[in-house]
Amino acid sequence: MKLATIRTVSGTSAAVVRGDELIEIAGVPDVGALLAAPDWQSVATAADGARHQAAAADLAPVVPHPGKIVCVGLNYRNHIKEMGRELPEFPTLFAKYPEALIGPRDDIELPAESDQVDWEAELAVVIGKPARRVSEAAAADHIAGYAVLNDVTMRDYQYRTPQWFQGKTWENSTPFGPYLVTPDEFALGAILRGQVDGRTVQEVPTSDLVFSPAQLVAYISTIFTLQPGDVIATGTPGGVGHARKPAEYLSHGNLLSTSIDGLGKLQNRAVKVVDHAGAN
Amino acid sequence: MKLATIRTVSGTSAAVVRGDELIEIAGVPDVGALLAAPDWQSVATAADGARHQAAAADLAPVVPHPGKIVCVGLNYRNHIKEMGRELPEFPTLFAKYPEALIGPRDDIELPAESDQVDWEAELAVVIGKPARRVSEAAAADHIAGYAVLNDVTMRDYQYRTPQWFQGKTWENSTPFGPYLVTPDEFALGAILRGQVDGRTVQEVPTSDLVFSPAQLVAYISTIFTLQPGDVIATGTPGGVGHARKPAEYLSHGNLLSTSIDGLGKLQNRAVKVVDHAGAN
Repeated sequence: MKLATIRTVSGTSAAVVRGDELIEIAGVPDVGALLAAPDWQSVATAADGARHQAAAADLAPVVPHPGKIVCVGLNYRNHIKEMGRELPEFPTLFAKYPEALIGPRDDIELPAESDQVDWEAELAVVIGKPARRVSEAAAADHIAGYAVLNDVTMRDYQYRTPQWFQGKTWENSTPFGPYLVTPDEFALGAILRGQVDGRTVQEVPTSDLVFSPAQLVAYISTIFTLQPGDVIATGTPGGVGHARKPAEYLSHGNLLSTSIDGLGKLQNRAVKVVDHAGAN
Repeated sequence: MKLATIRTVSGTSAAVVRGDELIEIAGVPDVGALLAAPDWQSVATAADGARHQAAAADLAPVVPHPGKIVCVGLNYRNHIKEMGRELPEFPTLFAKYPEALIGPRDDIELPAESDQVDWEAELAVVIGKPARRVSEAAAADHIAGYAVLNDVTMRDYQYRTPQWFQGKTWENSTPFGPYLVTPDEFALGAILRGQVDGRTVQEVPTSDLVFSPAQLVAYISTIFTLQPGDVIATGTPGGVGHARKPAEYLSHGNLLSTSIDGLGKLQNRAVKVVDHAGAN
């Protein structure tokens, strides 16, 4: 099953993908609200609302307002090895806030304050059932599905202080979607790919993750309860712009594509905001 | 004006403090919901709901479900100087999730997984009006008020990886309250104090902050929109247990008191959870 959140004239709506159409799930404003219902799979299967051509639909972030977005750093073997580091014993975790999220075809806001906006193509895990201190074996049952996310990062802000958070959560910077794909239709190993204006900059099988989705759910749920709609961004492989020689960053007009085979593609134009008028 | 969120038999309610009584604000479930109304000060002033003795009231975290809790590290001059560091150019920021919050008299959960649960007495700022790219001069107008918070930290988890987040957001660890005190009744300079079983371990005037509340609102609002009910935990002064020789941590039965003159006091018993039965 594939789910989406579409923007309509009367607000957003959860929708289910059937063939090349999106069918609205009447009365459910987004995929986050859908997942809050324990019988969400039945609700989605029974959808018979308004129909839209998928290719033309205006898509919101697939979960527009997750309660929590937990990001993972240093989680691809190829990236860790190229940096000459040891494989980590524990996942490195940090947070992102929902204000950062944009839809799969929305513009990425390049703020006037940063000159180092970089890409980080990632596999995202979405929680479908509350999880606290679940075992790795039990974790799969708490995963609603998978999506694509680009953890776009302002490197200058990331490295201003010892904590990365302030470079990781700029408003309107993080594309997320296009669909939530349930686990029966996805397997680790699918290729994760990042492209800038058609040039491939990141490409790795998702099986190269150090900590798998199930391991991450188990580990994070030791610390707090993961709730339906919460998101885990599982980390990025090698190929980010900041590590290139010379370093590369997104410029006004660049098209950033992020895809995972079977999950779909995000295509986002980088747009420099030179005048933040309207700020109060 | 002083506001609180009280627990009643029919759920939580926002309340206003008058003398030694709390007056419920009918139909408003908590202080976060109250602050979402632009005329929240008038609504609170007009409160005439059920009355409770303040001393006996069962208080929830003053804002139980903030959209965002932004924490600040390394923000007290005395603490930075005792560590032999330079004063920072930029605030160090990280996140905490609402699942961590507990009420001003609730137990602090010492999880079985950590042996290094430490205290961090802090001044909390609560946002009252949306703020994006506000100047330092304009920031005061976006602050609803102040409260006390203890950023209780699992040091072993904090230092497992380069990012502190996983030591900062354990469920049921962070007391927050007792009241939201509006800016007309509070001035920087009031003494912040942390005590363990009556012994003072942290004590400093809040005027010792490197980055003031207004500077923090201005800085953070560059990155994203601060919304009503969002919380900034402004950092802790010297005297944390981890930096003591020998190091000290909270043990089962310890009473952690955290107070700021004029804002009130949190009193929380540390309770070791030895059996996490019920986890799934």
